Amino acid sequence: MSNRRDFIKGTAAVAAATTMLPWMASATEIMAKQKKIKLADNTVVLFQGDSITDAGRDKNNMEYNNQAAFGNGYVSHIAAQLLFDNPAKKLKIYNKGISGNKVFQLADRWDKDCLELKPDVLSIMVGVNDFWHTVTGNYKGTIQTYKDDYVKLLNRTKEKFPNIQLIIAEPYAVKGVKAVDDKWYPAFDDYRHAAHEIANQFNAIYIPLQEVFDHAQEAMPGKYWTGDGVHPSPAGAQIMATAWLAAFKG
Amino acid sequence: MSNRRDFIKGTAAVAAATTMLPWMASATEIMAKQKKIKLADNTVVLFQGDSITDAGRDKNNMEYNNQAAFGNGYVSHIAAQLLFDNPAKKLKIYNKGISGNKVFQLADRWDKDCLELKPDVLSIMVGVNDFWHTVTGNYKGTIQTYKDDYVKLLNRTKEKFPNIQLIIAEPYAVKGVKAVDDKWYPAFDDYRHAAHEIANQFNAIYIPLQEVFDHAQEAMPGKYWTGDGVHPSPAGAQIMATAWLAAFKG
Repeated sequence: MSNRRDFIKGTAAVAAATTMLPWMASATEIMAKQKKIKLADNTVVLFQGDSITDAGRDKNNMEYNNQAAFGNGYVSHIAAQLLFDNPAKKLKIYNKGISGNKVFQLADRWDKDCLELKPDVLSIMVGVNDFWHTVTGNYKGTIQTYKDDYVKLLNRTKEKFPNIQLIIAEPYAVKGVKAVDDKWYPAFDDYRHAAHEIANQFNAIYIPLQEVFDHAQEAMPGKYWTGDGVHPSPAGAQIMATAWLAAFKG
Repeated sequence: MSNRRDFIKGTAAVAAATTMLPWMASATEIMAKQKKIKLADNTVVLFQGDSITDAGRDKNNMEYNNQAAFGNGYVSHIAAQLLFDNPAKKLKIYNKGISGNKVFQLADRWDKDCLELKPDVLSIMVGVNDFWHTVTGNYKGTIQTYKDDYVKLLNRTKEKFPNIQLIIAEPYAVKGVKAVDDKWYPAFDDYRHAAHEIANQFNAIYIPLQEVFDHAQEAMPGKYWTGDGVHPSPAGAQIMATAWLAAFKG
């Protein structure tokens, strides 16, 4: 048992040290002020979202804690670290992100891909397609559609699981990299702000990804962190994992 | 520039804290005594091996620092962390592991999948198939074949790149989990010891994976860390990444 305590102490030290990276400092200061996720035994953790979350996962694989089912993006890094740091807790971690999804498409599959899994911790990252697909002309939804759909989805979730721990990640974009040009602004900012407001409204932990990616550009240009302005590079996925893991420390 | 120094200091602190995990302590003590990898600007890092290294990578993707080309195993975690920790160094990281490979199969593709990439740092993890395929009756090679093939491969590499920094990982197996039964012992141990001797002979950094996985079982049973006794679970891949990253710290 003292082993267990040392173990947990060691893990917390890792997380604390991580916050020392200077260009992560501002974002992690925000994280430090926030509530933290409580990981009790048998906690079910579900990641939901679009292609950034999906990250090439095997959608025929329905297992939890399975590498192919995690894909190879930020979820893979977070899940591996959580399973490494909390070996005795019998966590069950799922990734159910699907490429291209907007909020209404999460809603369409919410019974199967969320409620039936009975998540204790639910992380959602969605919004970039709700905006992007309007620029490319494939989608007619507005910022109000995004807000309404998102609030409806979360109300539906909280009704079923009043004590669920929510994580809402900010949709981000890296300006000047490939897909992300002037046409995105200022309209895209409204989606970021809406996600923040909704996170506050639902008392969720908010992952300030735009700030994280903005600060990362103090170290290297945007294209180092994302190939197309939207999807993270391996280094970008590690930034995201670091930001998320700050919510799981302490 | 002072930012850069703080950045590096922060990263070192993360690595130092990582060594505090008690069941990693013994392995990291060994790592601490070893040489460390020097990551100069423009360092090319190549991971070579079998299915454990391959981890579902896209073999049509020839890019460096590319997530699909990394696969979703231990290489993905190491590479993402190195690219995150060293943003300004212009590292080029490749994964060229191929499922099922034994040493002679690495040799068959060594020009294309190693020498032409001009690696400054070369990490090799190979050996479990050199033994396993003799148990399943698909391969006639002996322990001597493994040693001879491995030494020949490394001589060929050092001839071309005398200053290459080598990492040799111990082939490991988790006894009692699925594929790994009594038939493996003591014969398999000879392959582990051979890898260690070869690492010493070539002044390579040695990653003591058997010890790492043995100690991990103080926290949880073997099947938590590997589904079949050979391939790591997500938590097992994170153990491996942690052990490797200890060679890159300081």
